[in-house]
Amino acid sequence: MCRYPETVAHIDLGIDEKQYPGIIGLRMYRPETAKPLYDLADVLLRAPNSLSRGERELIAAYVSSGNECDFCRDSHSAFAAAQLDGGLPLVRDVCVDPEAADISPKLRALLRIAAAARVDGRHVTADLVAAARAESATDLEIHDTVLIAAAFSMFNRYVDGLATLAPEDPKAYEATAVRIVEHGYTV
Amino acid sequence: MCRYPETVAHIDLGIDEKQYPGIIGLRMYRPETAKPLYDLADVLLRAPNSLSRGERELIAAYVSSGNECDFCRDSHSAFAAAQLDGGLPLVRDVCVDPEAADISPKLRALLRIAAAARVDGRHVTADLVAAARAESATDLEIHDTVLIAAAFSMFNRYVDGLATLAPEDPKAYEATAVRIVEHGYTV
Repeated sequence: MCRYPETVAHIDLGIDEKQYPGIIGLRMYRPETAKPLYDLADVLLRAPNSLSRGERELIAAYVSSGNECDFCRDSHSAFAAAQLDGGLPLVRDVCVDPEAADISPKLRALLRIAAAARVDGRHVTADLVAAARAESATDLEIHDTVLIAAAFSMFNRYVDGLATLAPEDPKAYEATAVRIVEHGYTV
Repeated sequence: MCRYPETVAHIDLGIDEKQYPGIIGLRMYRPETAKPLYDLADVLLRAPNSLSRGERELIAAYVSSGNECDFCRDSHSAFAAAQLDGGLPLVRDVCVDPEAADISPKLRALLRIAAAARVDGRHVTADLVAAARAESATDLEIHDTVLIAAAFSMFNRYVDGLATLAPEDPKAYEATAVRIVEHGYTV
């Protein structure tokens, strides 16, 4: 028996899903698994890296867009927009067509790797990796791009597989963006 | 310039890949990301749960088999076999056809959920969840099944996306199985 009339998820999360949508409610439901999941997001998307935080959030938003996961796409689009000069218009351009978007050749080459890994790890070819290296991508940047794409292939399946709620209004994600930019994922 | 002639991965992991295949080499290359990844595996596959360790490893092996990720399939098949009465023959039966395998109706219903989540989170329908509940699956078991399937959708893309080596001989995974069964993933 669900305690909240707004419940749409496959399982009873014991929270008001409208107030705690997507992975936020899952984090409260199962803190034991949330801890390593949020730690992973923090080291991939926030820790010191030659890829900026905005660029890494952009990879996460792009992968989530490809997987049509509304909650992750809109969350990480807001987080990317808050940390990139081009803001939300640039993020949307990338999600629609990274080939035409106003980003660096290196980031474009990394997004091609992310798109391949999103579908199947084996789709990341030596040619895609060589093309990224030709644009000065480092081994660590290639590694982290593959792992961000893989991690969001997980997060997307997690929030959608349990049918959690995703607010339709992009503004709903802005308050979280402020908190993430300021404090990161582990707080 | 690769330091080891056996290197096959897309990036130079700085290790002998024959000695440290799959995620083992990646763990040594990037301990910062390995920590939350291994913590996640430990809480999902080892921590106290109404699903046995063998059953949870079986879900991991089954998802990895569906994704045709040799390293994860053979690793977690060995780990499942070491913790299930049916051993490796049962694990292989499940990977080939869980509908015909000698497992409980509850585990079979959970494997259907895992198969759906592996392809796309949105494929986990209310009917699949209701069918698992009808076989006495709890909300937490359904949650963890979805997250195990999602997590291995990540691990599979991670090790294959970086083209790490996967030993062909199933015996190569047995020593690790002994260690995992005894000590878990976080040691």
